[in-house]
Parts: sequence; structure tokens; C-alpha cells
Amino acid sequence: MARSVRVAVTGAAGQIGYALLPRLASGEVFGHDTRVSLNLLEITPALPAVEGVVMELDDCAFPLLDEVVVTDKADVAFDGVNWAILVGAKPRGKGMERGDLIVENGPIFVGQGEGLARAADDVRVLVVGNPANTNCLIAMTHAGKAGVPSDRFYAMTRLDQNRAQVQLAQKAGKKVTDVSNVTIWGNHSATQYPDAENARIGGAPCTSIIDDIEWLQNGFIEIVQQRGAAVIGARGLSSAASAANAALDHVKSVETATPDGDWFSAGVVSDGSYGVQEGLIFSFPVTSDGKGSCSIVQDVELSDFAKAKVAVTEKELVEEKAVVSDLL
Amino acid sequence: MARSVRVAVTGAAGQIGYALLPRLASGEVFGHDTRVSLNLLEITPALPAVEGVVMELDDCAFPLLDEVVVTDKADVAFDGVNWAILVGAKPRGKGMERGDLIVENGPIFVGQGEGLARAADDVRVLVVGNPANTNCLIAMTHAGKAGVPSDRFYAMTRLDQNRAQVQLAQKAGKKVTDVSNVTIWGNHSATQYPDAENARIGGAPCTSIIDDIEWLQNGFIEIVQQRGAAVIGARGLSSAASAANAALDHVKSVETATPDGDWFSAGVVSDGSYGVQEGLIFSFPVTSDGKGSCSIVQDVELSDFAKAKVAVTEKELVEEKAVVSDLL
Repeated sequence: MARSVRVAVTGAAGQIGYALLPRLASGEVFGHDTRVSLNLLEITPALPAVEGVVMELDDCAFPLLDEVVVTDKADVAFDGVNWAILVGAKPRGKGMERGDLIVENGPIFVGQGEGLARAADDVRVLVVGNPANTNCLIAMTHAGKAGVPSDRFYAMTRLDQNRAQVQLAQKAGKKVTDVSNVTIWGNHSATQYPDAENARIGGAPCTSIIDDIEWLQNGFIEIVQQRGAAVIGARGLSSAASAANAALDHVKSVETATPDGDWFSAGVVSDGSYGVQEGLIFSFPVTSDGKGSCSIVQDVELSDFAKAKVAVTEKELVEEKAVVSDLL
Repeated sequence: MARSVRVAVTGAAGQIGYALLPRLASGEVFGHDTRVSLNLLEITPALPAVEGVVMELDDCAFPLLDEVVVTDKADVAFDGVNWAILVGAKPRGKGMERGDLIVENGPIFVGQGEGLARAADDVRVLVVGNPANTNCLIAMTHAGKAGVPSDRFYAMTRLDQNRAQVQLAQKAGKKVTDVSNVTIWGNHSATQYPDAENARIGGAPCTSIIDDIEWLQNGFIEIVQQRGAAVIGARGLSSAASAANAALDHVKSVETATPDGDWFSAGVVSDGSYGVQEGLIFSFPVTSDGKGSCSIVQDVELSDFAKAKVAVTEKELVEEKAVVSDLL
């Protein structure tokens, strides 16, 4: 019998959801021997729009797509799911500070964390909705009270990793597949540290191929940190297709064994590695054993420059945690 | 060396284009051994938005994606392409008659037909933009003057086929993969005839599984014909993800040999089969030899009911052709 997976997607009526769902259903992510069911969670007023999305999923006649469940209840959405991709979050309104955004979104992830108690034993959770790391921390905490292990939780920094990888490839005049070992350290925010010092191009240290250190330490980091705003500037809309693509890349990277010597970036719960405060959701270099278990790569060398950058993004995450302390 | 294809997409800044491009670039369509280049055509005011889409394609770090060309000139867009997917067309404005839409869009496809003279020798052209059949007729005519054979042109009825297939599967309580031999006859418009009489479910005649003839002859046909409007009603936006998906299905169906005994639907130039006026772009049951050559399936039985439906949609296409006679 064919393998099957059930995937929950929250914010299913949004633009990222719209880009994500067909690619989840097409077999591209879990393979052409795996049937897929989808549980779509939205806020009540958006349910009619989700029904429209379901009509279109039907109209795709995907050979591998089984059931599609639509709900506005977290415990229904997460019932029996093997993956939960938490895209839905309130967007940052005009004049809102980041702190306000955190406070607005926190309670959503309390409820979703509790709902995750009903997920399958092997559930993996990827938080995409911003502020992703702190939302993930809240969901992990509340799911944890119901017995879901904390190592099942990821905050997405894969879009940042992909952006960094492409910038390095373009600067070096190489293909994107020539670039490996790209790390995003810390928060999925403008304080993130995209690490060129440990990246490799064609197997060689990136810094031996790109000798423009000034660019690596400034221009490159700024481009990656500000890329989301640049896309909005050009498209008039925020990144959706590339965010959805990164979520799929993340799922594939967790589901398959990481190639020897390489790693990928994801926000995971800190165990104190690299001196990062334990319990924060912090993006590290990680590897997967292909059986659903990921580990933080140890002994990646951090220069003083890198350590200072890591400290800045860690500080931001500590502050974000303090803002939501009453939700933890 | 890896195989490579170059694909032109027009209307690249639109919603269908946005859903189409990541899936073309991901390797899902042409296979994981085929590199992909994309030529994106848009009207001049939409070029900045296309640049935003290109930023997102970059940010997907697709391993197989090579060059992405952005242009507002048809001869640049079609230079050396193996496939041209013509999505861009003026939408039907408020109070516009179908005739007005045809007159508005015709000239676009004159220029694109001429530009297709620069395509690769093996070019295949899929017209998605409405009115698809007549736009396709215009493009085929002008490309033909430059030596592009008329059998390279398709008007998309695959979305209609997929919709019909799913409706039959749901009615029969079967999986969509159990349904085969679904034909859309005629025009990609409300006069199309979705043919349940020749469809098969689990290899048996559809009519032996679904015995509700009243539904097959009325409800079913109406659901398929009006599905686009129903999606707009639910989503508040027209079908984009499912239209893009159907375009990809079409390309895959042309690129691979059709399974024995099955067929798919596509608007192709009529050779007089089934008494349909020669030279019209008319949707028939077709098969592919997997080497890029498609044939109209002969000897599909049409009941008097079916013949009357085919006559209605043929009449509409004859009238559409008359409206654009000065463009042919």
C-alpha cells in the first residue's frame, strides 16, 4: 500500500498558502509513492475563500491527493497530522512596532500549540508566520505541556538561506548548486546573521572564491536581511511563491538525510550550542538523519565578527521572549 | 550533459504566471535531468512586477533553473524557445461582450504569432489566454506564414478536462485516477461539450457506473461549463493555481506517450475529423507519441445528443473566426 501523510496548513486562504498547497498535493515533496491529505485551518471569515481554494485543488485532479479538511478549529486541523505548516499570522499593520506584532500573534500560537496535542506521534511543525521564532517558541511550549517533544519544532529560516545561497552564487559567477554550507544564525528578522565565512563554493571556502570581504561582511548581509522588503518594492506584494518554496525545501530537508558534509538552516530549540541561551528558538546549521531527527552541527568556527553578529540576534530573541513571557 | 529546455511564458506578472513559473522551474514538468530557462514576456508597464517575480525565482534557489529573460518584445521572448505558454490576454471588462473581448485580444496574438518565427525548430505553443481557441487560431496563422507548422499549436482545454474528471470521480465515489478518456469537445467557453458518454471509470463505461443520465446530460455539463464562475464566486478571484496546473498537465501529456487506450483533451487544428470545419482550433480527444507529435483520436462514438452539443460549440468557433477574419 502507498505511504500516506496528512499535512496541516494554517492561513490556507493567504498568498503563501495558495502557492504552497498545489505543490504539497502534486507529490513533489513527499514523493510519487505517497498519498497526501490536507487539513486547512483559517479564521472563520476566511472559510469561504478556503472553499474556493479547495475547489481549485479538486480541479487540479491531483492523482495523489486524498481528503481535504477545512476548519476554523485548531484541534480539528491538527488531528492526526504528520506535518503542520503554520503560515497564518496577523500581518504587521501600518505604524505597528515589532513588539506589537509579537503581542498580537502570540495568543494564536498558544491555541495552536494546544491543538497540536492531537497530531500524529511523528508530527513535525514548521512555523512560517512572523515573528516565526517566537511564535514557534509559544507553540512548542504549549504543545510540550501536552507531551509533544520540543525537537519537533522548527521556525523557518530556509527562505533566508536560499536567498543567501543565490547571492553568493551570483557574486561568484557559479551555479546555486555549487554553494553549500550556508547558515542563517538566529532570528528570522533583520538581525539574522547570514554566514558567508563558513559557506563553501564548489567545496572550497567561500572566502577563497569571493575575495571581496567588505561585500561579504556588509553588502551581502544587508541584501539578505532586506530582501523581503526589496521584493515588496518590486512586486508590490510580499514574497509568497518563494516563501512557499522554502517551506517545501525545509520539509524535504527534514525528510531526507542531509548529504555528508553539508547542512541546512532552521530555527530549532537551543540546547546551549555556541553559547546561545538554552530554550530559545534559534536558527543553527542542522543536519537530518532522514528519519525525522535533526541535530545542530557542532564545531562550526565563528570569528569574532560572527560572534558579535550572533550575539545581536540572540539578544533580540531574548527580548522577544520577555515580551511574551505571560504566554509561556 | 543534462538536457535543457527554454520556455516562454507571456503574462508573466499575472496570477496564473505566478503559479506556473515556480512549478516550471522546479523540475516537476520536464524531469530532474532537464535544465530550464525561462523567457518572460509582459506589457511594458508590468515589467517592474516581473522583475519582482524574477527575484522570487532567484530566491527559490532552484537547482535546475538557468537563465531568466525578461522582455516586452515578442521576438525576444520567443527566441529559441521549445515551448511557448501564452497566458497573457486582456481580461473581460465589465459590460464587455465576448465579441469585444475577441477583438481586443486578437492583435496581441498577431504579434506573438509573428514572433514565434524565432522559436526553436521543435517549438510547441499552448494558448491559455482567452478566448483561447481563437487566439490560438490567430497565432497559428501568423506563425504559419513564417513556416511554423500548424500542428505545434494547442488551445488549453485541460482545465475543463480536469474539472470534468473530478466531477465524475466524485459522483461515482471513485478516485480521480479511476476516471479516464474524458473529452472536452470544441471551444474553451461555456459552449464546450464535456463528454461523459465516452469517459470510462475503472475501465468501464462511465454510464455503466453513473446511471443518473439526467445528471450526466445536464447537471454535470453545466457544472463543468460554469466552474470558472463558481471559483470566482468562492475565492473572489479567478482560477489561477488550477489553470497553471492544467497548463503543466498539458505540457506533460504532450511530452510523454499517452497510455494505451487513454487520451487527453486539447484544442488542435481541425483536419475535418468528426465533421468539424477544417482549420478551426477545436478541442478533440488526442494522444501523444511522446516525441512531440499528437493525433486526433478517431472513431469515438458520438450520440445524437453529443452531435448536437458538438454542433453548438463548432458554430460558436465559426462565428469567432468571422469576427477576427481581418486578422487572419
